[in-house]
Amino acid sequence: MKFSIERAVLVKAVSQAQSVVERRNTIPILANVLIEAAEDGVSFRATDLDTEVVDRAPAQVERPGATTVSAVMLNEIARKLPDGALVQIASDEESGRLSVQAGRSSFSLATLPRADFPVMASSEYSANFKAPAGVLRRLFDKSKFAISTEETRYYLNGVYLHVAQSGDGPVLRCVATDGHRLARIDAPLPMGADDMPGVIVPRKTVGELRKLLDDDEAEIAVSVSETKIRFATPTITLTSKVIDGTFPDYSRVIPTGNARKLEVDATDFARAVDRVATVSSERSRAVKLSLDQDRLVLSVNAPDAGAAEEELIVAFADDPLEIGFNAKYLQEIAGQVDRDNAVFLFNGSGDAALIREGNDESAVYVVMPMRV
Amino acid sequence: MKFSIERAVLVKAVSQAQSVVERRNTIPILANVLIEAAEDGVSFRATDLDTEVVDRAPAQVERPGATTVSAVMLNEIARKLPDGALVQIASDEESGRLSVQAGRSSFSLATLPRADFPVMASSEYSANFKAPAGVLRRLFDKSKFAISTEETRYYLNGVYLHVAQSGDGPVLRCVATDGHRLARIDAPLPMGADDMPGVIVPRKTVGELRKLLDDDEAEIAVSVSETKIRFATPTITLTSKVIDGTFPDYSRVIPTGNARKLEVDATDFARAVDRVATVSSERSRAVKLSLDQDRLVLSVNAPDAGAAEEELIVAFADDPLEIGFNAKYLQEIAGQVDRDNAVFLFNGSGDAALIREGNDESAVYVVMPMRV
Repeated sequence: MKFSIERAVLVKAVSQAQSVVERRNTIPILANVLIEAAEDGVSFRATDLDTEVVDRAPAQVERPGATTVSAVMLNEIARKLPDGALVQIASDEESGRLSVQAGRSSFSLATLPRADFPVMASSEYSANFKAPAGVLRRLFDKSKFAISTEETRYYLNGVYLHVAQSGDGPVLRCVATDGHRLARIDAPLPMGADDMPGVIVPRKTVGELRKLLDDDEAEIAVSVSETKIRFATPTITLTSKVIDGTFPDYSRVIPTGNARKLEVDATDFARAVDRVATVSSERSRAVKLSLDQDRLVLSVNAPDAGAAEEELIVAFADDPLEIGFNAKYLQEIAGQVDRDNAVFLFNGSGDAALIREGNDESAVYVVMPMRV
Repeated sequence: MKFSIERAVLVKAVSQAQSVVERRNTIPILANVLIEAAEDGVSFRATDLDTEVVDRAPAQVERPGATTVSAVMLNEIARKLPDGALVQIASDEESGRLSVQAGRSSFSLATLPRADFPVMASSEYSANFKAPAGVLRRLFDKSKFAISTEETRYYLNGVYLHVAQSGDGPVLRCVATDGHRLARIDAPLPMGADDMPGVIVPRKTVGELRKLLDDDEAEIAVSVSETKIRFATPTITLTSKVIDGTFPDYSRVIPTGNARKLEVDATDFARAVDRVATVSSERSRAVKLSLDQDRLVLSVNAPDAGAAEEELIVAFADDPLEIGFNAKYLQEIAGQVDRDNAVFLFNGSGDAALIREGNDESAVYVVMPMRV
């Protein structure tokens, strides 16, 4: 194998591939990236056995071939080479080394045989569709904060991507929850997604996917089977196993009869929650919301450290209510609300609250109350 | 106690004070800041028993007095208040609470009595002098990287500030070393510093001092005794115990007979060291320098991972030499060299090397070799 590649192209391709590599590997080859050079370009492939990313890059290939080399080291070398350098990469089959050269720098890196590299088995996808990067980004960005980190509830350690019925017809939907709060985000159903099986996309894959979605207009090819999901741009393919479990029936959790309606500026609300929560150093900081005619008082009482209170002018015309929430959950949800007016729908002080952006039902959040 | 203070002024004063506070305190009052309001302004005082900082700020004082309150909490509250807010601070002796109010936010914080706050005993200083902030910054910034972190050699856990004789007469000198490398930085001796006892300024104090030295032109009042050192600007006073130990006789370590002279661009050199060191994942990465007629080859050989080599065009006209150094030490020293040409003076491959900026003897570094 022998090819030359621009430093900037190499940096981009390798950095995307190596981010899948786990830092602590018991299987040495999983620390490596598989470099495959063919006539039409070079690909860089990395895997942690659950997730695989393949990054294709243009290069001047003199001699096709393949080998594997430490992903972290290749990435570091590429980053440290001078801007604008042309990098010569060649494998020496006899010595089992990969040589990397640019200007007056030369490196000779240990390799492991290509044959040992675990390439993810290809599978039959039952649904294939395209979606704009901006749509996928919204679906996952707005839901991922609610993913559970409890490993015992493994089926909550991801985002549930599925087809659902909304009031306006069928939608592509992402739901995430950790049992304390829940996010439900809808997007128009793309052509060809009708038969998609519902899958739980693992947290790590959601993170890696994010890097493919920066360009709003890019079309992402999505393929889904019962066991795998694949996202592809023209240069990057991200394939991941999905979580083998059943996502709970979240629809029962979403309150439908909440009649007390609060409208508040989302930014003001988040800042006020942040301020009053300062006096409590506990992990689960309970903030009390006291609602009365167009008036919201946020308060925190931490007997050891002190107390805090802040008043906000809001729109509220229903019966007075006192209800408590985890400050962090309120802030995270308020942070997801893009528009000025966040709408809170409450029932009693022991019931879950529903939050949405204005009257938009395509992004809905639920949060459980705390006793205060 | 009752006063009002601008939010920006409060943020600045409290953040400087609270940075001295240790995050984990077994003595509760050490987590607090002592607020003292007098007719002419307010001061914020924090201590860890070894270091004390007092920050004075203008305020409208309605009722003088004093109390102590959690430094971290007051700092967080101040930061989170809206820009431009006027903050009302008042202590309620009956409830033992401190009230903080701004706009529609109000906080009531737990206090501890002023009498319990350990104020550092004042002491007799045997030398008092003034030095420009820029001069002190250079002395400490260029030496602190070499401070030892080994707690068993406590007398190396700081910068040795003392009066010394250089070729050009008496100087104010900072020396730091960890036994592997050493930095010796000189500045013109300020008036009144002649009788200053040599003191070892602890690492933490060096860090805190840095915040007083941002303004090049500011005059810093320095007071030194055998046991304490004090740095003061018109608004901030930093007082610290010095390390109770004897700094070793560093002059024996500084080579004087090194005759092989290498001149090299400091930035190019640091980058090349960084690149070749990539192939070694060990903590103490040894880089080999091979010197020949106007030619420097840097190389690293890590049997498991690979090898790297880079050539630099340099000025070198002496007998060829091969010598090894810890890559991190070389990079740190090269990073301190402000000018283009770093000068290395070598003797044999088993001897310490001396590095300086051009012919400038006012900043000299020594680094021990490694076997390669």
